Amino acid sequence: MRVLILGGDGYLGWPTAMRFSQRGHDVAVVDNFSRRRWVEAQGSDSLTPILPLEERIAAWKEVAGKEISSYVGSIEEPEFLERVIIETKPETIVHYGEQPSAPYSMGSREQAVETQQANVIGTLNLLFFIRDHVPEAHLVKLGTMGEYGTPNIDIEEGYIEIEHKGRKDTLPFPKLPGSLYHLSKVHDSHNIHFASRIWGLRATDLNQGVVYGIETDETALDERLCTRFDYDEVFGTVLNRFCVQAVIGHPLTVYGKGGQTRGFLNIRDTLRCVELAVENPADEGEFRVFNQFTEQFSVGELAELVKSAAEHLDYEVEVEHLDNPRVEAEEHYYNATHTKLLDLGLDPTLLGEELVESVIGAIERHKDRVVAGAIDPHIRWVSGRELGARIS
Amino acid sequence: MRVLILGGDGYLGWPTAMRFSQRGHDVAVVDNFSRRRWVEAQGSDSLTPILPLEERIAAWKEVAGKEISSYVGSIEEPEFLERVIIETKPETIVHYGEQPSAPYSMGSREQAVETQQANVIGTLNLLFFIRDHVPEAHLVKLGTMGEYGTPNIDIEEGYIEIEHKGRKDTLPFPKLPGSLYHLSKVHDSHNIHFASRIWGLRATDLNQGVVYGIETDETALDERLCTRFDYDEVFGTVLNRFCVQAVIGHPLTVYGKGGQTRGFLNIRDTLRCVELAVENPADEGEFRVFNQFTEQFSVGELAELVKSAAEHLDYEVEVEHLDNPRVEAEEHYYNATHTKLLDLGLDPTLLGEELVESVIGAIERHKDRVVAGAIDPHIRWVSGRELGARIS
Repeated sequence: MRVLILGGDGYLGWPTAMRFSQRGHDVAVVDNFSRRRWVEAQGSDSLTPILPLEERIAAWKEVAGKEISSYVGSIEEPEFLERVIIETKPETIVHYGEQPSAPYSMGSREQAVETQQANVIGTLNLLFFIRDHVPEAHLVKLGTMGEYGTPNIDIEEGYIEIEHKGRKDTLPFPKLPGSLYHLSKVHDSHNIHFASRIWGLRATDLNQGVVYGIETDETALDERLCTRFDYDEVFGTVLNRFCVQAVIGHPLTVYGKGGQTRGFLNIRDTLRCVELAVENPADEGEFRVFNQFTEQFSVGELAELVKSAAEHLDYEVEVEHLDNPRVEAEEHYYNATHTKLLDLGLDPTLLGEELVESVIGAIERHKDRVVAGAIDPHIRWVSGRELGARIS
Repeated sequence: MRVLILGGDGYLGWPTAMRFSQRGHDVAVVDNFSRRRWVEAQGSDSLTPILPLEERIAAWKEVAGKEISSYVGSIEEPEFLERVIIETKPETIVHYGEQPSAPYSMGSREQAVETQQANVIGTLNLLFFIRDHVPEAHLVKLGTMGEYGTPNIDIEEGYIEIEHKGRKDTLPFPKLPGSLYHLSKVHDSHNIHFASRIWGLRATDLNQGVVYGIETDETALDERLCTRFDYDEVFGTVLNRFCVQAVIGHPLTVYGKGGQTRGFLNIRDTLRCVELAVENPADEGEFRVFNQFTEQFSVGELAELVKSAAEHLDYEVEVEHLDNPRVEAEEHYYNATHTKLLDLGLDPTLLGEELVESVIGAIERHKDRVVAGAIDPHIRWVSGRELGARIS
């Protein structure tokens, strides 16, 4: 199968590219390296020393004997993207090619606009080129569980049957996203749903939970194949960040009370979920939504888990509750359905102390690379000025 | 009160500016004249001979003795918009400054991107500058009833209480918009709701029905104060278009079966609704949604009404059912709540033959200006190529 991976140089994109290549698919990747630039601009860097894309691809050829082709450019540039679609004629497009950080999107007006423009306009370009050149292709789009927010009812997979004043309909699940990044994903979901409804496109929206982990079957084959691993306040996700904090003797920084509950999954399960979606494509005109996570935890529970695992490895670990830089409920109801990927055959990698210990072990090898100053949160959802104005 | 009107040169923006000026408010308008350019680019023109903005403003000063200040530029340009906000320090912002046509947004990838970029990024800029410079200002944003689509349940005003698996929450009403333009308004609504929730901004989203009519109290004062009136396939709304068709002897063009039901309102009621929203501002942190229309009609009913009124005026009128250029349900359930503006005191101007006759009368005076070739639909929601692909 011809598989095009947008964002194929990223944390998940690169392992996904290798996975599909390993399985014998004809893989092309697109990236404009903005993730590398954004992280560097924050004064941080990947914990793991990642190679430039062309060198990764060469190493992959050496190790696995397989070719991955690459296109360097931005999906916001229509001429570029159209050429890629025409040249690669993909049967499946896995779309990770977006600005993925909530704090980044809240850092300034410029970053908010950059996020919504890159994500919404890039994806809109893509929908038109799929329509015009590969209308049978299956779009597998990475969304986020954060699109739903924390409603006081159970979260369903994309749609909900509503009974209202004696009538019924099944409608898109209402969204209450928590950042301008999460909003960009909500906008994407609405645009893709429209393209399915009106143009008959096939699409699967993977509303992914928070990913953790550092290793997949393919990255483990050779050091040069490692994926990036971010732990900073902007691009690091919570469990990865806690593990780095434990290793360098930094307190685990819990934002606020720590009762914030979210869905989580291992990076290995991300690859498996994407594979399951690709192997079982959406029908013509279908906009399918899967909630892609395996377990729910509160941030406080995760901190305790990392503390306990790290202490087994003789680290001394403190948990510190910081003023929450985000505006979010710190104690709330949370119960999200996530059965569709299980029904397709997902066998979850569950989080436990052993797994945390293995992540910590991988981090130890690179701990001299950690930029400690990039960890504590500086971007606030509400500026000091506004807080002052509201309190006064 | 200091009132800033974005899109103040448009069909609704210009009459709104005069209305607030007449009531003694300190009015500034912003426009980049893109509506004038878009309509000309379609080979069409306003039925009414509208003056350039500066001449309108001079005529208004002569007629009413009042000043309206103006800023020419795009809200997508942050430096421009920030300067306007700082200089005008608005207490109320009425935001009409968007690309308002569904067919325009469906005409090409370029037009779709232009629409979502202008509307979403322009409004996002605005939200940041309100936050940073006038956090107490009340944003009155023009949305559209088209954000909801045609669900099989009653449409509520912005929110719906959902009972699900034994729990309850009041959540944003799910949206099923019917064009990439309507999607841009859905994106705006989500972004504004977020700015209210997180930054405490005051906002009212007016989900407006289809507006008809040509005259307001202020436009009637002097010919030079008339507002634009579009009847072409791209920027003309259905009732206005039917009235022009009746006058020039063109069949009334009903798309498909004509069972498409929507909410409608008179341009005079648009002004009154905006005024009611402004006089009764949203609370701090409140994102308020009003469904702004006064009556529901099917397109077929409107055609019959116009035919009957025009026949009283001795026109011969035919109704022609064209292949529907849009992808939409042509027979469907539709019942939308619209009580909040009535509760604030709206006294609706109801549509009847007399009112249609008065619109026809106004059109007659300019009928030599009609570009008949701009009326029939050419933009299709689904291209011939895709239709062919799907049928084969």
